Amino acid sequence: MNTLIINPPQLQWPELIKRPLVNNENLEQTVSEIINNVKQTGDEAIKKYSLQFHGFAPDNLWITKDEIKNASKSLDKNLKKAIHLAKDNIEKFHQSQIEKVKKITTLPGVTCWRKNVPIEKVGLYIPGGSAPLFSTLLMLAIPAKIAGCKNIIVTTPAQIDGKISNAILYVADILRIDKIYKSGGAQAIAALAYGTQTLEKVYKIFGPGNQYVTCAKKLVNANGIAIDMLAGPSELAVYADDTCVPEFVAADLLSQAEHGSDSQVVLIAPYKKIIEKIIDAIHQQLPLLSRKNIIEQSFLNRRFIVIKKKEEAFEFLNEYAPEHLIIASKKAYRHGRYITNAGSVFLGNLSAESAGDYASGTNHSLPTNGYAKTHSGVSVDSFVKKIAFQKINKKGIKNIGNAVEVMAEAEGLEAHKNAISIRLKQMKN
Amino acid sequence: MNTLIINPPQLQWPELIKRPLVNNENLEQTVSEIINNVKQTGDEAIKKYSLQFHGFAPDNLWITKDEIKNASKSLDKNLKKAIHLAKDNIEKFHQSQIEKVKKITTLPGVTCWRKNVPIEKVGLYIPGGSAPLFSTLLMLAIPAKIAGCKNIIVTTPAQIDGKISNAILYVADILRIDKIYKSGGAQAIAALAYGTQTLEKVYKIFGPGNQYVTCAKKLVNANGIAIDMLAGPSELAVYADDTCVPEFVAADLLSQAEHGSDSQVVLIAPYKKIIEKIIDAIHQQLPLLSRKNIIEQSFLNRRFIVIKKKEEAFEFLNEYAPEHLIIASKKAYRHGRYITNAGSVFLGNLSAESAGDYASGTNHSLPTNGYAKTHSGVSVDSFVKKIAFQKINKKGIKNIGNAVEVMAEAEGLEAHKNAISIRLKQMKN
Repeated sequence: MNTLIINPPQLQWPELIKRPLVNNENLEQTVSEIINNVKQTGDEAIKKYSLQFHGFAPDNLWITKDEIKNASKSLDKNLKKAIHLAKDNIEKFHQSQIEKVKKITTLPGVTCWRKNVPIEKVGLYIPGGSAPLFSTLLMLAIPAKIAGCKNIIVTTPAQIDGKISNAILYVADILRIDKIYKSGGAQAIAALAYGTQTLEKVYKIFGPGNQYVTCAKKLVNANGIAIDMLAGPSELAVYADDTCVPEFVAADLLSQAEHGSDSQVVLIAPYKKIIEKIIDAIHQQLPLLSRKNIIEQSFLNRRFIVIKKKEEAFEFLNEYAPEHLIIASKKAYRHGRYITNAGSVFLGNLSAESAGDYASGTNHSLPTNGYAKTHSGVSVDSFVKKIAFQKINKKGIKNIGNAVEVMAEAEGLEAHKNAISIRLKQMKN
Repeated sequence: MNTLIINPPQLQWPELIKRPLVNNENLEQTVSEIINNVKQTGDEAIKKYSLQFHGFAPDNLWITKDEIKNASKSLDKNLKKAIHLAKDNIEKFHQSQIEKVKKITTLPGVTCWRKNVPIEKVGLYIPGGSAPLFSTLLMLAIPAKIAGCKNIIVTTPAQIDGKISNAILYVADILRIDKIYKSGGAQAIAALAYGTQTLEKVYKIFGPGNQYVTCAKKLVNANGIAIDMLAGPSELAVYADDTCVPEFVAADLLSQAEHGSDSQVVLIAPYKKIIEKIIDAIHQQLPLLSRKNIIEQSFLNRRFIVIKKKEEAFEFLNEYAPEHLIIASKKAYRHGRYITNAGSVFLGNLSAESAGDYASGTNHSLPTNGYAKTHSGVSVDSFVKKIAFQKINKKGIKNIGNAVEVMAEAEGLEAHKNAISIRLKQMKN
């Protein structure tokens, strides 16, 4: 699959849009056991797993207010400034997602509307791992705050010294989040889903993670706990035409590939030559990068494909339904209309995916693994539910009463009919 | 649980908000087998199950255009009129859910927006059973059409004569839906999820059904197929104060209970006397109803509770998170602000649940079993995904470039930083 693929017939597409397979037969069993242990012994299980997986067990699983306040002092000034710029942009974009109540009079006397009401209790999982992802905390906590969620609990694994990164604590501080629980992995998801002695269970769990975290989210979801989405390995597809800048495309593909060895990059271009130029640029840039080994691993999953016809190229991309899609072209804006399935789209040569990952304002929690065909990325919508309301007065019940009676009768639901008849009758008296 | 409960302490609430348990140990195994058979032999399996469960196998699993056209001729005029009134109201309310694109400039040169894009292929399951639910077809197909879904497939079980009810066909006709597949049960869900020789699989499956249908939706969902929600037995909670009309409340509770023996009604009032009056009215109305037996069965699951304090009553109701909530009070509109968890709310003595079930304009596909804490009912939103777009120009990359570089570096993602640096550098040249 790693050679250049030229104009693949549609029959070959299903194979080409397949994501790298995660091979772990015992995953579900292992994760089920972890969840059951957390259900049974709560915080103790969390400490036990912390010791087992990370080599230490924190005395106090909760971050203290002092720890949060102190983080600000030792954090680099430039990073603080950058975080504030990102925060402002993310807030601006997500605030535009707030929906006003629109009252609709469907017939005189019949008024219907929907009201966005925050999900009361939410849990945000922030991965630690090789690097503390404070950007993910920005991306999840900002819409949660804008939505008005009352109880926001963050869980994130502590570093080997038992501490949480200053950047994560700083973001929590400026967003006024003070419930931070030191736990990662499947056990953290179990704690959010079922609660522990010190952690009140939440209604919905957000955030990306490794295969254990994703499996735990899947299992608790099957058990009735809402989740944002099942996040698989990250993906980027690029459509590059002869107006692209090969060095930029190369840099974008490399940036995607550094996420992890299971990440995938797809590149589509109308001519072989464009791809060759991009490969040249990759060869120049790759040796200088610190995560070279991960990138090389991840590049084993790459798909570099020539599809001559633009329409067919976008048909392929829509079938693939990438998490991120870059249109590396001066005509990007016009090409935008072909896109029917994608998580987040970056139009034009200067719209780097990194920008959306951190600071342009859009959310970086996006549907992977083809879920972009049906799912949206995280937004304020993800933190609310829309409750329908209706108010019917005398005029209203007169206007629709008979129709309801006739339809209820036709469906054989006499008591439904009666609930209207009894009202119509009383009004006549 | 069937006696009147007076001011239950909060400790007792978890027991009180429990839904009736569906007891079917072998359900998952049975449904898995059905799904596997449909995966293997497609339309043949569908015919086999039709013969097995309904006593006949249709020759042609697809409704013909003639069948659709003929339905109109034999349908009662009054029913047609009622259906058109309902259609107009449902369309009016759901059209108000269309979101316009809002382009947000987060910083000069950085523009972000979201675009609602229809889910291309959707399947609508319409239950047959004791009565053909043409109202459900209105509730699912209208938002699907407004969203712009291209491929809409309806599946519904045929009646014993191999036909589909004229009312369902008529609704399909006026909504211009021509793909109707004669299949019900878990096998229909399997057909939608995995396709058959004649049915192209869909991306998302909608619609209520019995426990087999719900279990099938759960299983295909765990396998990556999107679904609207897991619909459990229907529920209604009523808050009635001394300004309610006991006869109306009684009629509403009875109408809910006639859905099925596993339906549940909850009634909360500040005084015992109010509930007693409602019970009196129930005793008067019940004997006259055709579905009396089902109602009596369902009433075994009822919860009639006195909670004196209004705030506490709504706290209980929010914990219960009912699918339908009626506020039977002259002060209903003011009480509305206490509601944080519910599917659809009916304000005031004239707002019968039946009205919303059929014709007021709101959707009747709603979250049950406490899912209203996190989920919304079906709406146009359910048939689209929101794709994020961004466009960054030279000014934009200058404005946010440095922040992205600093944040990417702090997260140890050098290639992410490089994707920005290479662009900033080129612009200087």
